[in-house]
Amino acid sequence: MIIVMRKNATVKETGAVLKKIEELGYKPHISSGEERTIIGVVGDDRRVPMDQVFEPMEGVERTIPVLQPFKLASKEFRPSSTVVKVGNVAIGGDEVVVMAGPCAVESEEQLLAIARIVKEAGAKVLRGGAFKPRTSPYSFQGMGSRGLELLALARKETGLPVVTEVMAASDIELVASFTDIIQVGARNMQNFSLLAELGKCHQPVLLKRGMMNTLEELLMSAEYILSNGNQQVILCERGIRTFEKYTRNTLDITAVPLVKQLSHLPIIVDPSHATGKWDLVSAASRAAVAAGADGLIIEVHPQPDQALSDGPQSLKPERFLSLMKDLQKVAAAIGKKM
Amino acid sequence: MIIVMRKNATVKETGAVLKKIEELGYKPHISSGEERTIIGVVGDDRRVPMDQVFEPMEGVERTIPVLQPFKLASKEFRPSSTVVKVGNVAIGGDEVVVMAGPCAVESEEQLLAIARIVKEAGAKVLRGGAFKPRTSPYSFQGMGSRGLELLALARKETGLPVVTEVMAASDIELVASFTDIIQVGARNMQNFSLLAELGKCHQPVLLKRGMMNTLEELLMSAEYILSNGNQQVILCERGIRTFEKYTRNTLDITAVPLVKQLSHLPIIVDPSHATGKWDLVSAASRAAVAAGADGLIIEVHPQPDQALSDGPQSLKPERFLSLMKDLQKVAAAIGKKM
Amino acid sequence: MIIVMRKNATVKETGAVLKKIEELGYKPHISSGEERTIIGVVGDDRRVPMDQVFEPMEGVERTIPVLQPFKLASKEFRPSSTVVKVGNVAIGGDEVVVMAGPCAVESEEQLLAIARIVKEAGAKVLRGGAFKPRTSPYSFQGMGSRGLELLALARKETGLPVVTEVMAASDIELVASFTDIIQVGARNMQNFSLLAELGKCHQPVLLKRGMMNTLEELLMSAEYILSNGNQQVILCERGIRTFEKYTRNTLDITAVPLVKQLSHLPIIVDPSHATGKWDLVSAASRAAVAAGADGLIIEVHPQPDQALSDGPQSLKPERFLSLMKDLQKVAAAIGKKM
Amino acid sequence: MIIVMRKNATVKETGAVLKKIEELGYKPHISSGEERTIIGVVGDDRRVPMDQVFEPMEGVERTIPVLQPFKLASKEFRPSSTVVKVGNVAIGGDEVVVMAGPCAVESEEQLLAIARIVKEAGAKVLRGGAFKPRTSPYSFQGMGSRGLELLALARKETGLPVVTEVMAASDIELVASFTDIIQVGARNMQNFSLLAELGKCHQPVLLKRGMMNTLEELLMSAEYILSNGNQQVILCERGIRTFEKYTRNTLDITAVPLVKQLSHLPIIVDPSHATGKWDLVSAASRAAVAAGADGLIIEVHPQPDQALSDGPQSLKPERFLSLMKDLQKVAAAIGKKM
Repeated sequence: MIIVMRKNATVKETGAVLKKIEELGYKPHISSGEERTIIGVVGDDRRVPMDQVFEPMEGVERTIPVLQPFKLASKEFRPSSTVVKVGNVAIGGDEVVVMAGPCAVESEEQLLAIARIVKEAGAKVLRGGAFKPRTSPYSFQGMGSRGLELLALARKETGLPVVTEVMAASDIELVASFTDIIQVGARNMQNFSLLAELGKCHQPVLLKRGMMNTLEELLMSAEYILSNGNQQVILCERGIRTFEKYTRNTLDITAVPLVKQLSHLPIIVDPSHATGKWDLVSAASRAAVAAGADGLIIEVHPQPDQALSDGPQSLKPERFLSLMKDLQKVAAAIGKKM
Repeated sequence: MIIVMRKNATVKETGAVLKKIEELGYKPHISSGEERTIIGVVGDDRRVPMDQVFEPMEGVERTIPVLQPFKLASKEFRPSSTVVKVGNVAIGGDEVVVMAGPCAVESEEQLLAIARIVKEAGAKVLRGGAFKPRTSPYSFQGMGSRGLELLALARKETGLPVVTEVMAASDIELVASFTDIIQVGARNMQNFSLLAELGKCHQPVLLKRGMMNTLEELLMSAEYILSNGNQQVILCERGIRTFEKYTRNTLDITAVPLVKQLSHLPIIVDPSHATGKWDLVSAASRAAVAAGADGLIIEVHPQPDQALSDGPQSLKPERFLSLMKDLQKVAAAIGKKM
Repeated sequence: MIIVMRKNATVKETGAVLKKIEELGYKPHISSGEERTIIGVVGDDRRVPMDQVFEPMEGVERTIPVLQPFKLASKEFRPSSTVVKVGNVAIGGDEVVVMAGPCAVESEEQLLAIARIVKEAGAKVLRGGAFKPRTSPYSFQGMGSRGLELLALARKETGLPVVTEVMAASDIELVASFTDIIQVGARNMQNFSLLAELGKCHQPVLLKRGMMNTLEELLMSAEYILSNGNQQVILCERGIRTFEKYTRNTLDITAVPLVKQLSHLPIIVDPSHATGKWDLVSAASRAAVAAGADGLIIEVHPQPDQALSDGPQSLKPERFLSLMKDLQKVAAAIGKKM
Repeated sequence: MIIVMRKNATVKETGAVLKKIEELGYKPHISSGEERTIIGVVGDDRRVPMDQVFEPMEGVERTIPVLQPFKLASKEFRPSSTVVKVGNVAIGGDEVVVMAGPCAVESEEQLLAIARIVKEAGAKVLRGGAFKPRTSPYSFQGMGSRGLELLALARKETGLPVVTEVMAASDIELVASFTDIIQVGARNMQNFSLLAELGKCHQPVLLKRGMMNTLEELLMSAEYILSNGNQQVILCERGIRTFEKYTRNTLDITAVPLVKQLSHLPIIVDPSHATGKWDLVSAASRAAVAAGADGLIIEVHPQPDQALSDGPQSLKPERFLSLMKDLQKVAAAIGKKM
């Protein structure tokens, strides 16, 4: 970390900062410029929240972190890519993996029908919500444990592994017993109690980026899971909140290559939530694959206007099929399988 | 709700929309403009997520909500202001209530010392974190249940009611048994499982606005608590995330009068988190009182550089005392007590 | 437009609104719901700023626009795509057009060297700044008219048409005399005086989206140029400002398919400014082509650390060459030429 | 500036960076940590855009500026507050100065009527737009030079100095000849050609913050004016663009104390544009005064629904009068005159 002293910092103030650095077990490194004194703190300063120690001290203008705050999630810690395996499916390797299905599980018929369709089209994982986080308490909140049973049934019928969201720590065990990948929704990205508990379970976790969280924060949330013992984390970019009004969110496509630079974890893209409009899903999906995403998670529904949730952003089967064909070409163009 | 048809929508498409409206038990109201056909849906359309039903239909360009999605939280539902009472303290009336204390409970000595200081200065509620949501898994996570015991002790010593954060539904009962107001942190504003559980308890809830959330979403989260049975909700504006880099967040001061227009619930301001810098807390606090806030929640620490959390934004006791005097003058200027 | 009356609006207030609508020459269309009266205004309401007329009236809660505010720029006005032709180059057709060159023109040697390199690699237009908008008055402001002469020289040498920025209305004639496409920078997207003047000239205009502007505003700025008589407008997405800190801006990739839905104008992407980092330019470029962009504008510099401007986001020649090969494959995968 | 080398930077790469630092006339200062080598650059590095020189070099991870990029605008350069004098009015001293008037000059009757009203209520400067920047080319664009004549007439009648916006460099002389303070609108905050020209004129400039510009950028734009010779700059916070939808913009109230810390220039607040709704203007104005603003600029119109521009955010005369009385109390409460 670097500590920038104020222009008019006194010798006494600077001395107090140096003393504190040594008390904490670090070595200070002073550099006196024309206008400012700058103090480098040598040593791994991630152990203590250094900014919170030094910023309140008299004479300190600000502190500047040098190291990234995440460690286990970093590329430096683990230079080779993590590949998360779920049955026969490998996420983070040289194949683009598509997860698809309805926003919410609504009935056995609906789920099985969609599961067969997306498998046919080439999807490798079935998605479907049993517990639905909804802005309004009056909206459909999901089928709960009955939904989980249906997901397990669809898995049995189709052979597709299943990803579904968990909203409460108390449901982790239940969800884990029925499904293959446990999803943390965008609104729970910084639900640290939930993350810590997921770190203790043995199933892959799909961690969605919060709609107003930085990539650094996403990687810090992954760090919660990793540092609690679970190394199977898949990150997901699903759009961030901006001032633009035509789309539900703004897909931050550059998150894909950035995460690849910063971390060894796989990253997939959710074009359905990122755009909020089915007629933008295809273009967003192609862009994600071209940018190097390890996979996609797409909402598909045979009758979007009958969907109990997220109809406007769900693709009809025929459009999904056509999209999958397009994506295979784009994947091939950048040297990936699909 | 209003449904705007595309310019080239066919008679068949428009017919399907009209039929669907009637199926759902509403009355359609058609208005044919020069360029577009617009269909009004008459009836309380909050029962079903209408946008999700109609937007996927062929020929529909978009839907426009007319009614606000929150009901119990709205001023229309309850025109008179809600006053939340905690012991002798009334939040939402004609008095500006200041809650103050350390970011985190660190020790008996620390907490009691600060509790006496803030009481002396005129604070009416003691704040202090026992469970701390931290971005990094390596940062101090709070004292947990021991922290709650210390808060109860400080309450006994000073007579000040206590507000503290709960991070997990499984801790609600524990936290409720030791404290007076239960806080939902910004990162949990849309942790709907937690909100629903808090709706079933009998203690006042301090609901902080998420850094990424609109005021409509804040009121919808309050609606979760209200609709589950708990009417004692205090809202808190604590800064939102923007592109500005000098401050930790951007205090949305206009949230105060807006919430007063839209809702009957009290709203307080957290100038410490909103700015992230102690030397901006005073100006932000004065602004909040002048804008009509029902109260403030301020971080105070005798030695900010020793604080285990949020040192940079904590006020020293003498500054807090001086601020309280300034705030009394501002409160008086707008006809409020303090 | 739709006017939503307040719940408690009086008959007199509603009457005044109806009267005003008729005064302005429109037909009102009343719909009385359970909670609100809604008044539709039938007729093309883009002639007057209706929200500004009705929102201040007593009893009015809010107004909701139904029609898009842009007309000449809209797909409805002109369903077939506009193709902008510059010499042999057609922008907006079935070919992906790459514009490349240095951020700033620095010298004859530098410009000619880069011009030859980018032509060799397959770029069809040469970019280079002569007038540079810089945040700091102390930064290099560009070579001015000497830079324009060098651009004209490079055009003569290579045959590549040239695009360069104009910053002041008084320079339009000068810039037009030396170059082929006139660029409006992001910071001038709402410099309406400049836009109106460009509408009167006869050269294609490359209009960059402001970092703070919605797509609706971008199309309204295009409308300024179109309505003043110049139909040759190329739009450019170059990243918007968000809270994310790793990148200079956030590339709004969905802007590409959205503009294609809303407008007939071509849209290209600037991956250099959108990311601010050369090692993200390739992924962003591939994504842009896959999303359907009509072209790209990329900064290339043989020695980025010697560049007088934007070195960190400039590609070295060998990387640009390699990128062009990748892009050709992606273009082919989606059925486009390059 | 500080240069952070990559973890695996080679000796050769580090050597090249050191050599470049010395070539530019600075002294390097090396600090080798456990994971990174950090190089401090000693000397005033504002002369060259150092980040652009070093970030493209091999082995460099990133650069971190230490000094603020603005100089003449900084508090360090000039510790005492700048007071801008316009006739008898002093902006930046111990008095809160209110500027008020219509959004746009519409007619002699309208302007004179409002001018008398706002003077009566205690405003010290008359505002009114003659050249109006409008998002739509079809909206009223202002009366132009006839508007300027009317402003001069109103000044003569009431004795109030006048502030109005200039949109083009070619109009500066004309505007200066009729008015007292020249306003730069938010959309032109980074119209550097215009700023440079205003630096050469001899009239006070009211510089509005762009809706998506940082305070650092605002101060850099002020630096353009100051460094060109004009020291009379008044800054104006007018709301920034965020994701919140209820208000037109989000008033960044903390900008007031922050600018006071960073700069010697006066700062005023525009509550009309910041909120976009007349019923929020009063609360926002009180907050601004309580936060320490040097003044306010408020839109007033006797018949907002007849206004040709910005009706929804204009105060009626009686509300303005009532607000002025409230503001006097708040100003007194914080020890200021009004």
